[in-house]
Amino acid sequence: MKVILTIFFILSLLSLSHASVVDFCVADYTAPNGPAGYSCKKPAKVTVDDFVYSGLGTAGNTSNIIKAAVTPAFDAQYPGVNGLGISVARLDLASGGVIPLHTHPGASELLVVVEGQICAGFVDSGNNVYLKTLEKGDVMVFPQGLLHFQINSGKSPALAFVSFSSANPGLQILDFALFKSDFPTELITQTTFIDAAVVKKLKSVLGGSG
Amino acid sequence: MKVILTIFFILSLLSLSHASVVDFCVADYTAPNGPAGYSCKKPAKVTVDDFVYSGLGTAGNTSNIIKAAVTPAFDAQYPGVNGLGISVARLDLASGGVIPLHTHPGASELLVVVEGQICAGFVDSGNNVYLKTLEKGDVMVFPQGLLHFQINSGKSPALAFVSFSSANPGLQILDFALFKSDFPTELITQTTFIDAAVVKKLKSVLGGSG
Amino acid sequence: MKVILTIFFILSLLSLSHASVVDFCVADYTAPNGPAGYSCKKPAKVTVDDFVYSGLGTAGNTSNIIKAAVTPAFDAQYPGVNGLGISVARLDLASGGVIPLHTHPGASELLVVVEGQICAGFVDSGNNVYLKTLEKGDVMVFPQGLLHFQINSGKSPALAFVSFSSANPGLQILDFALFKSDFPTELITQTTFIDAAVVKKLKSVLGGSG
Amino acid sequence: MKVILTIFFILSLLSLSHASVVDFCVADYTAPNGPAGYSCKKPAKVTVDDFVYSGLGTAGNTSNIIKAAVTPAFDAQYPGVNGLGISVARLDLASGGVIPLHTHPGASELLVVVEGQICAGFVDSGNNVYLKTLEKGDVMVFPQGLLHFQINSGKSPALAFVSFSSANPGLQILDFALFKSDFPTELITQTTFIDAAVVKKLKSVLGGSG
Amino acid sequence: MKVILTIFFILSLLSLSHASVVDFCVADYTAPNGPAGYSCKKPAKVTVDDFVYSGLGTAGNTSNIIKAAVTPAFDAQYPGVNGLGISVARLDLASGGVIPLHTHPGASELLVVVEGQICAGFVDSGNNVYLKTLEKGDVMVFPQGLLHFQINSGKSPALAFVSFSSANPGLQILDFALFKSDFPTELITQTTFIDAAVVKKLKSVLGGSG
Amino acid sequence: MKVILTIFFILSLLSLSHASVVDFCVADYTAPNGPAGYSCKKPAKVTVDDFVYSGLGTAGNTSNIIKAAVTPAFDAQYPGVNGLGISVARLDLASGGVIPLHTHPGASELLVVVEGQICAGFVDSGNNVYLKTLEKGDVMVFPQGLLHFQINSGKSPALAFVSFSSANPGLQILDFALFKSDFPTELITQTTFIDAAVVKKLKSVLGGSG
Repeated sequence: MKVILTIFFILSLLSLSHASVVDFCVADYTAPNGPAGYSCKKPAKVTVDDFVYSGLGTAGNTSNIIKAAVTPAFDAQYPGVNGLGISVARLDLASGGVIPLHTHPGASELLVVVEGQICAGFVDSGNNVYLKTLEKGDVMVFPQGLLHFQINSGKSPALAFVSFSSANPGLQILDFALFKSDFPTELITQTTFIDAAVVKKLKSVLGGSG
Repeated sequence: MKVILTIFFILSLLSLSHASVVDFCVADYTAPNGPAGYSCKKPAKVTVDDFVYSGLGTAGNTSNIIKAAVTPAFDAQYPGVNGLGISVARLDLASGGVIPLHTHPGASELLVVVEGQICAGFVDSGNNVYLKTLEKGDVMVFPQGLLHFQINSGKSPALAFVSFSSANPGLQILDFALFKSDFPTELITQTTFIDAAVVKKLKSVLGGSG
Repeated sequence: MKVILTIFFILSLLSLSHASVVDFCVADYTAPNGPAGYSCKKPAKVTVDDFVYSGLGTAGNTSNIIKAAVTPAFDAQYPGVNGLGISVARLDLASGGVIPLHTHPGASELLVVVEGQICAGFVDSGNNVYLKTLEKGDVMVFPQGLLHFQINSGKSPALAFVSFSSANPGLQILDFALFKSDFPTELITQTTFIDAAVVKKLKSVLGGSG
Repeated sequence: MKVILTIFFILSLLSLSHASVVDFCVADYTAPNGPAGYSCKKPAKVTVDDFVYSGLGTAGNTSNIIKAAVTPAFDAQYPGVNGLGISVARLDLASGGVIPLHTHPGASELLVVVEGQICAGFVDSGNNVYLKTLEKGDVMVFPQGLLHFQINSGKSPALAFVSFSSANPGLQILDFALFKSDFPTELITQTTFIDAAVVKKLKSVLGGSG
Repeated sequence: MKVILTIFFILSLLSLSHASVVDFCVADYTAPNGPAGYSCKKPAKVTVDDFVYSGLGTAGNTSNIIKAAVTPAFDAQYPGVNGLGISVARLDLASGGVIPLHTHPGASELLVVVEGQICAGFVDSGNNVYLKTLEKGDVMVFPQGLLHFQINSGKSPALAFVSFSSANPGLQILDFALFKSDFPTELITQTTFIDAAVVKKLKSVLGGSG
Repeated sequence: MKVILTIFFILSLLSLSHASVVDFCVADYTAPNGPAGYSCKKPAKVTVDDFVYSGLGTAGNTSNIIKAAVTPAFDAQYPGVNGLGISVARLDLASGGVIPLHTHPGASELLVVVEGQICAGFVDSGNNVYLKTLEKGDVMVFPQGLLHFQINSGKSPALAFVSFSSANPGLQILDFALFKSDFPTELITQTTFIDAAVVKKLKSVLGGSG
């Protein structure tokens, strides 16, 4: 032990104030963002709370017709994950609850069932459908950009955490893209072969126009 | 000029037989493939024809109900693009032809109109719809993973070339994923809110089951 | 609806048997692996079970001195995540349980507390220490390659799921690297300034040699 | 259909104003740029015209000695491709026109012949030359960073579109680098073995100095 | 030669003032940085000196207890490497000098011995130890994120240059992370099994607290 | 210390025989390679010698007309760097020695002068030339894919080590691509404006044909 009694800090130039920026890039929402994410907060302003997100501790409100809630902790909500290639969301599904068919254009998704039973599935480019009823503790992965869904197939509420291979996975909900947007009905009909009447009914429910 | 009259090939060790593998990785369809693409052909077997694809020279057959044809030159068809992060396809649209709503899970797409007039559009994660009528020579980009479509909005046939930011972009056609697959009708209804009757009619047309 | 009654499958060349390979690359453990991951299973052999992992459904055995267990679902255990840039592990910590100081050389980690209370922390290149006591539902991110740990700081068992920004994050446990290896004691002393006597005692406990 | 008549927008927090930034990053030329591209325009300012580029609709002026014109739509000209890993340019070659030997330091190139006949070629690290005469509809790929050229080898004008595996491929024209720059003649001679007299003559034509 | 006597600069639009930004992104330390690195200096302000670093020409001061010095040329010191995926540092080791056990969270390291003899080693996730005594001209690679060290095992001073697969590799020195930080002694003991007394002694030497 | 006296190896499942593959991928030259590099050697066969390369310890033979030698340690020669994004080469330049103008299509290069004086330079896409005379210890970076050269501008031999941001940077020597290949003289003349007579003379010296 003696040997080190007088160690100088010769290497300390390597651990100066810039160092914090080296390992991570906590989002500074006030500066410009770019293709790789948000600008980095100054190291001196970074605290442990940037790396911790507590917003997933409470169940989302499932008192709605889909009986489900999604609470995201992506880089827009959770500054610490900016640039780290990972993020997370909480899924709450009351009995009968449904996360409608959707894609994440920018990430693969990995779901862990924490409570209840979830029937999940995705479809690939070859139109193969992969379906599974997942129990507590089961894990399922949904490859990037493919249509997938989750349904509470049990009798009690279900809880799952989904993580993503990007801090910014995106989320395109099929029904919202078509029927909660101003996508002209005629173009929807032409490009999906769904009758205009059906489109219009769904738009009136979901709030779409056009 | 004299100076170089007796140059030796001291650097030639750097340009030996391995060299061809350095710059590209022409697909060897007989060896295993991995997440980054196909295995590489032995350099000695690589020829210029691996880098040239002639299958896009002829118009696809548009004598069908969608009056359209897509001819891909992805890494599965075009060995030279393997690992290079780019690929291409040809779109032929007869008057009234439609490329139905679809996504490419693994790439952004860039469309160049070569003949005719094309109405194209995409929807983003915020349910904003971006629509444009494109004339000959116009270019439009469709960001990765987002739903988009193309329609011949002119009176003459339209031709376009679409390139992709991956040698292997994937292609998920919405109608095929839903109605030409064995995706159970009940689950489609639950996750899209489209009536079972509508689903069944579309399945009967497109060949889906379940 | 009539419009589509006779739709042909003109696009079907795009959804042939190769398609499954397009979107994912389920690990084939019998073929060579490379820097990007394992070789891909033939599409025809891929089933939904490749994308589902059930090994995390049961608690790990914490009847040991660290009162903790880590159960990984990385690409070596879970073929479906190969090449998708994401993986997961289950942490079980009995009261007083500890996941000793460690790094993941190849990924950032995101921890979700599912049960109990966990005190977690990491150190950055600037020797700043980030510590937090996490409650159920809290999330914490550990940037790639930095030393970090988790301790059950509550009175009941704790359960957490940790996901990673790689299918293959690696795991270097500090104590194992030093004291459960054949790292020569003299070199450890020289490069860590820890007394040889201390090193030897820890090696005898953990099973190291040299 | 009834089932959905009262669907609430429980998921709508996921499709708020930030959403547009999620999927793309339209270049804001007034903010700083970084290694991954330009900063992103505020979502509210993004319109479909950011994704459409009409500058390639007109033929470039080929009334010059090389009888050729290149019109780029890279991220500096086309804000919508910023960060998307793809871009495009238009090549016009009058009969006898030539795109001189050049490289793209940052991207592979994929050429589609739209009109006429083009003789194209590239050289690899092993000094192998790949040459091909391409007809209308033919495609050729030029791997990243390798010297290549295009010549109109037919009797009529040729038109091609070239796409790139980057929004920002760069372009180094060999003759310009050597003879249209202030690269000292002596150094050119030393590093290319081309006689000083030849270098000087080419510099006088192309406008180089030194 | 005549042929080119009147070449116009038809391509010159491609080599305008923006061009310098195309190929590199010299760090502008006054603008925000992001996950991919610093913002880019305006092309007009870039000079050759941005690409040259002379700070490694002088030996570091090894008159300290570890008899060693590390002089980094990372993107924070060397603006020209920003975004280029490479950087370098100089190691000076007096006889008996030691670079203590450390990791680079963000890069693999490649060491070239220029003078003297260096004993180097690393430990992998499987707790395998890789040790080698390197002579002048020998090269050793240390994979990303793994614990490694260098010791001058010769009788004369040793000099090495280490390059990294990132412009911003980071550096976590094990002893500094534990004993030169405010990492609470109790937590160190719990997560490393090193006695509190040992921890406290090392902290008193290295300047840690807590 | 007592606390740990009976630690079990509960985590040892994480450090089994697969672990070595986790952190690196030593090249197996007998298995197929892919776009990301060579297949990985089985962990059990990996030794420290895979990570050490001794071939750069001896000076290359500069008794040739360019008075220079390049000795590469790329992934084809040095299995340990496979997939790690870094490699190295040794440059020996006798007085007056020249590394002719060349590019690395797949990597940026960082040069460290170890002995002597080197005049180095590169040209960017904007035809700007960056020239510098480097002394011992100076470092210069050459961005990916750009033409560059090195000349011994001193009176004594020069030695430099160059590292690359890829395990497989490629090397295209301009003179070899043009004059040591079978690139048809007519096409060279057309695409470089260099007189056929000059081309033929250089080809006769360097061994080109066509």
